[in-house]
Amino acid sequence: MAQNSPAQTLSATFLRSWLEGVFLRLSFSEVDAKLAADVLMLADLRGIDSHGVARLSGYVRLIEAGRINPKPNLQFTQRKRATGHLEADGAIGLVSAPFAMQKAIEMTHECGSGWVGISNSNHFGIAAYHAMMALPHNYIGFSTTNASPLVTPAGGAERMLGTNPICVAVPAGKKPAFVLDMATAAAANGKLEIAERVQKPIPQGWALTKTGEDTTDASALKQGGMLLPLGSDADHGAHKGYALGAWVDIFSGVLNGANFGPWVPPFVSFLQPRPDQPGKGLGHFVGCWDVEGFRDLADFQRDMDLWIQRFKATTPLNPNQPVIVPGEPELAQYAYRQTHGIPLVDAVITDLTAVGEALKHPFNP
Amino acid sequence: MAQNSPAQTLSATFLRSWLEGVFLRLSFSEVDAKLAADVLMLADLRGIDSHGVARLSGYVRLIEAGRINPKPNLQFTQRKRATGHLEADGAIGLVSAPFAMQKAIEMTHECGSGWVGISNSNHFGIAAYHAMMALPHNYIGFSTTNASPLVTPAGGAERMLGTNPICVAVPAGKKPAFVLDMATAAAANGKLEIAERVQKPIPQGWALTKTGEDTTDASALKQGGMLLPLGSDADHGAHKGYALGAWVDIFSGVLNGANFGPWVPPFVSFLQPRPDQPGKGLGHFVGCWDVEGFRDLADFQRDMDLWIQRFKATTPLNPNQPVIVPGEPELAQYAYRQTHGIPLVDAVITDLTAVGEALKHPFNP
Repeated sequence: MAQNSPAQTLSATFLRSWLEGVFLRLSFSEVDAKLAADVLMLADLRGIDSHGVARLSGYVRLIEAGRINPKPNLQFTQRKRATGHLEADGAIGLVSAPFAMQKAIEMTHECGSGWVGISNSNHFGIAAYHAMMALPHNYIGFSTTNASPLVTPAGGAERMLGTNPICVAVPAGKKPAFVLDMATAAAANGKLEIAERVQKPIPQGWALTKTGEDTTDASALKQGGMLLPLGSDADHGAHKGYALGAWVDIFSGVLNGANFGPWVPPFVSFLQPRPDQPGKGLGHFVGCWDVEGFRDLADFQRDMDLWIQRFKATTPLNPNQPVIVPGEPELAQYAYRQTHGIPLVDAVITDLTAVGEALKHPFNP
Repeated sequence: MAQNSPAQTLSATFLRSWLEGVFLRLSFSEVDAKLAADVLMLADLRGIDSHGVARLSGYVRLIEAGRINPKPNLQFTQRKRATGHLEADGAIGLVSAPFAMQKAIEMTHECGSGWVGISNSNHFGIAAYHAMMALPHNYIGFSTTNASPLVTPAGGAERMLGTNPICVAVPAGKKPAFVLDMATAAAANGKLEIAERVQKPIPQGWALTKTGEDTTDASALKQGGMLLPLGSDADHGAHKGYALGAWVDIFSGVLNGANFGPWVPPFVSFLQPRPDQPGKGLGHFVGCWDVEGFRDLADFQRDMDLWIQRFKATTPLNPNQPVIVPGEPELAQYAYRQTHGIPLVDAVITDLTAVGEALKHPFNP
């Protein structure tokens, strides 16, 4: 992250406590403030800098604009033994998604699998937080969300899908969990921002201009362009990345009565939601499977450890760069940052300082 | 498919009836013979030529070699209210996967969701057959399978994963269903075979040579090379395609006691399974969610139709090529081939003729 010129490295303890104070001052309950801070902190600890405190000022503006409800009345309806719906009453996703995942876990206790669709919610932070809630139970966790439209379908030239992530968290035995947590775009917008900051071109296959031309301009999105789905072009399977993003959109939006496609409300407070929305807020979809629902846990753990060990031993392309297992780099970051602190770039420090001043909750690390 | 020089176009009725005869002569029960033929036919009707009758001689050789059991004793164990395991006793996947999906559908009747993991099975044909079984119930269907290792993990140079497909089939209202059915490799091996037949290079990003060099040689796989995951390279998200293929491998193999990774048994009968296999046969994972488990069906159907309509109306890159919805091209092929027949290339006709002669069940279209 050298190119982001970290201005300061802050302890997780300080940041967490300060964040809780921010949410309390924004009228969150104590429990919700702790939870929202915890979700943001997990992103920063895992090295997913785009989804942690860097997003805080965006959430604050949406709360102040009345577009996120700090005191939501979350209404859960269990519709079947193993499925249900959460009307999130305009909650921040940092709070509604863990609530829903807890319900899914409870249904999994009874049925071996449990699923909750969420409507009328907002941005839920890193998908991994919610899916990983399953791990202490030796359940496999799953989470998705839709998001503001930035990605064009394959063969299109229009922003229709968010970067719509999929997360699957699988427990192991003695080895750390397998955690797939990926945007369904070729590259998430955070990567374009980093390239722009250091004035480097982006690879072809990440974005198109507003009129659908190929581009290597890192400011393409700001100029009205769009992201490409995973696969990038027709030859390399862009129809697959499009289909994955579409699946996430349907499960997060259409299945739950939330908005979908181009109607998903924007994250930035200066853009208004479209007047013709078919649903409520944005949507998420979370759930789990109990390993014991398929196989004895000890047998699974033994084989999962073997899977991890064997894949890490794959013949590497570059002898100095061993093949990694999904979730491994994030876990290494987590361990490092717990001990050594979280590096924040100048722009984020400035942002947090301004939030602190406005809320009379000084940001004095 | 002009480059494949179709030698003959055969009616679905003839092919189906002849296929049933083949499976009967291979000692399948009447029910299983009909089912296996039905799965292969759906592939050919949907235009997925690589997974239909073109595979028949491969299955026949595995049956003759004793590696597929034509009279399996399928043993289903319901382990939780909504989950279970199928020990397939060496069955062909064309039979075991629909059996498991039927169990998942029954559990979904009770719980709103249902899941079955399958071990000791073999190649299951097109993933869409199994997931689409959910559609008449207005359930969303899901199916995956692992397969013989051909794909390297991102950053690796070793065959570790199959082309491990994911299928998600979502019902709509008046519009046809959304059907995502995709290999998690950048391109499936069938595409390399087609390029080789017409002596064209393949795009960079599909395959590596045996020693891990980039290549545009369509015969790369035959020369010991490997396929690349969706995303192709580090810049374009190969770690995402790898993570998806790994997810499929874990759910199909590790979760059910089937083989996984490099231990998945080869589809071709002249290659022996490895002696140190950790599991039994190859594995699949199938299941469904009831739309009513999340939202009233009529509301979902209305919004799903709107989703499809809106995505088809995406501004296209090329005004003459409208954006399509996953499953749309396969449905168009299905309608066309039901009426006009199924085109088969010379090599497949020769193959089927040989199968017919060996089984004294002449292939006389």
